[in-house]
Amino acid sequence: MSILTATYQLYGKPGSFEKKAEGIALGLTIGSWTDLPLLEQEQLKHHKGQVVSVEEFGDAPHPLKPDTIKAEVKIAYPSANFSADLPAILTTVFGKLSLDGEVKLLDLDFSEELLSHFPGPRFGIDGLRSKLGVMDRPLVMSIFKGVIGRDLDFMAAQLREQALGGVDLVKDDEILFDNPLTPFDQRITTGKSALEAVFEETGHRTLYAVNLSGRTSGLRDKAKKARELGADALLFNVHAYGLDVLQELAEDEEISLPLMAHPAFSGAFTSSPFYGLSTALALGKLTRIAGADFSLFPSPYGSVALEKAQALTLGHALVEESPLKRSFPVPSAGIHPGLVPLLINDFGIDSIINAGGGVHGHPDGAAGGGKAFRQAVDAVLSGKTLAEASEQHQELKTALDIWG
Amino acid sequence: MSILTATYQLYGKPGSFEKKAEGIALGLTIGSWTDLPLLEQEQLKHHKGQVVSVEEFGDAPHPLKPDTIKAEVKIAYPSANFSADLPAILTTVFGKLSLDGEVKLLDLDFSEELLSHFPGPRFGIDGLRSKLGVMDRPLVMSIFKGVIGRDLDFMAAQLREQALGGVDLVKDDEILFDNPLTPFDQRITTGKSALEAVFEETGHRTLYAVNLSGRTSGLRDKAKKARELGADALLFNVHAYGLDVLQELAEDEEISLPLMAHPAFSGAFTSSPFYGLSTALALGKLTRIAGADFSLFPSPYGSVALEKAQALTLGHALVEESPLKRSFPVPSAGIHPGLVPLLINDFGIDSIINAGGGVHGHPDGAAGGGKAFRQAVDAVLSGKTLAEASEQHQELKTALDIWG
Repeated sequence: MSILTATYQLYGKPGSFEKKAEGIALGLTIGSWTDLPLLEQEQLKHHKGQVVSVEEFGDAPHPLKPDTIKAEVKIAYPSANFSADLPAILTTVFGKLSLDGEVKLLDLDFSEELLSHFPGPRFGIDGLRSKLGVMDRPLVMSIFKGVIGRDLDFMAAQLREQALGGVDLVKDDEILFDNPLTPFDQRITTGKSALEAVFEETGHRTLYAVNLSGRTSGLRDKAKKARELGADALLFNVHAYGLDVLQELAEDEEISLPLMAHPAFSGAFTSSPFYGLSTALALGKLTRIAGADFSLFPSPYGSVALEKAQALTLGHALVEESPLKRSFPVPSAGIHPGLVPLLINDFGIDSIINAGGGVHGHPDGAAGGGKAFRQAVDAVLSGKTLAEASEQHQELKTALDIWG
Repeated sequence: MSILTATYQLYGKPGSFEKKAEGIALGLTIGSWTDLPLLEQEQLKHHKGQVVSVEEFGDAPHPLKPDTIKAEVKIAYPSANFSADLPAILTTVFGKLSLDGEVKLLDLDFSEELLSHFPGPRFGIDGLRSKLGVMDRPLVMSIFKGVIGRDLDFMAAQLREQALGGVDLVKDDEILFDNPLTPFDQRITTGKSALEAVFEETGHRTLYAVNLSGRTSGLRDKAKKARELGADALLFNVHAYGLDVLQELAEDEEISLPLMAHPAFSGAFTSSPFYGLSTALALGKLTRIAGADFSLFPSPYGSVALEKAQALTLGHALVEESPLKRSFPVPSAGIHPGLVPLLINDFGIDSIINAGGGVHGHPDGAAGGGKAFRQAVDAVLSGKTLAEASEQHQELKTALDIWG
């Protein structure tokens, strides 16, 4: 029997969790059990939720209710109860329950059979590396800055500057939607020319992820159009749409473009310590399962920061052993070249170093910022300290002087 | 200029909010302002977010950080910055910001022009009343109980029992998905026969809302099929899909069925007092804007309860004056006949009294439960107390004896 196991965090009185867990396991499946005739029990047993484990944390009292403690309970749901899609799964394991007081969905464990219904990334880390021809270092990405209200010339110039710095990827600002100044189609074609020009001058290839936006049912055709126009990748605000929408884009043979999942809006259901989903589940496991080739998430270093343990678990969920391809972890926000050793230590070679201010705020412009990041990466991989490398690399030195 | 005004709840040191609000207004629009040349300021001024108001609540300290207090700030976003769809709107006003510490999106105020891009309910309260021929009382709805693992005969028998009690609507369990025992199409046709039979026997018309589920891009065809098969209404777990998906169903002329929005999963982003969206915004205003004819939400009375003030604000958002039609408020969970006077007092005549256990738990079965609710409604509307009415109505008396 195919199974989905959910791990929840609850708060309550010590000793109260077994009963609570039983209530969830029944309430979210067949409703009742002990008062059913034996014949009906026989008929329904393959649909009954099962409490797998209950673990109380006596040393973790609720910060506002000191007589209650934290517990983690695992409940197994037979996959016979739902269709193999994420809306059905989320409704089953956290539909009504999400409204039932302080309960947080920490993890979902998919049986192999259930997992086989999900695509995972079409390209994954290896596919993207092949596309770029960069096999042995973290990729470097930068972000447009202040593009709302600007025209295509502005955008092309900024893209060119960023590419000249040697970044591997540039992504649209997630708040740039279809607009008369920089329409979607023209962002793709203008971006392509700008990056082609840099490639001819420098031999360096930069990919541009354009923001796929608009009405849900229009996304497919728009993505196909993007592909026809030669787009490199699509940025997607998946959490403002729904994970299943991402999955449909990932599954579509005619789209077949790398998908970059942006965390916009996800804080609404991940930030609370008591409610919603764990960040690792939402931006890690589920985003990978649904087919994102890249998952952006708040780094543990900046002012908009994720707790370090959470960020590491999230990064791990994107690359851990699985029948699915690996998604690139993209820890974002507050990133400057001085953090590169830490980033590589925390997220490994198979990650993306993504910066906005850390690229554009460089005194030598975005080109200087990009170079400083690339120099920092090279230093770490060749076993040098950044201080040593900065003796030979002016851009890195300047960056370290500013950001430390 | 068309405008969207967002109201946020923040926590911080007294006096710190003006700066924080300015940071949001700029950060979520054009990025920077004071350091821009005048010419660029001129070019960008129609895209700049504006702080509308900042209100500090000195008497509302943070429960865990007593040196910080609550504030509400209003920020106006030019609609030139985004396309007129909910994913773009949510990404703009609460994309990155949702990840930026303790900030809760309390409300969104749409300018009339912006609102004109949204359908609202196709039928609304008046359309649904006409459909049912019930103009002057709250509707009564009941919910299937324990249908997972059961077959069509079980379902038809349960539907019949409920309809015999005189309820106006019966909804699918939101955790009932496509399955071999009770497939979608056959739920519709079997349900229809069962309800037709009751109509012929009693003259009472009950509508059945079938759960529309499955992959996002398949929903449209499935809904059209439902209409062809004579479905009365569609239940939809909108928050496990995305609000824009609901909107597309509501806008589709070929579907043209009443849509019942279920709150499953919404607790993930509404339950925290510090993060996410207010329940009134998520299940009230936005659900109405996107086109739900009914919005279910936790009642303020049961064990899975919404705070009373929030529930009332939510109910109000569904029916307040607007160019859009009104959605039926459906306060749910913990409802029994004894609560009918309170429900009518709190949510008015134009609401739906929705019960699961309060119908099925009646000693005379679901038929008795439904009758007790209808008797309670009639009592309140004719100015009688429930105690008075229960002297003539056995089912109501039995219900009051059990639930009070």
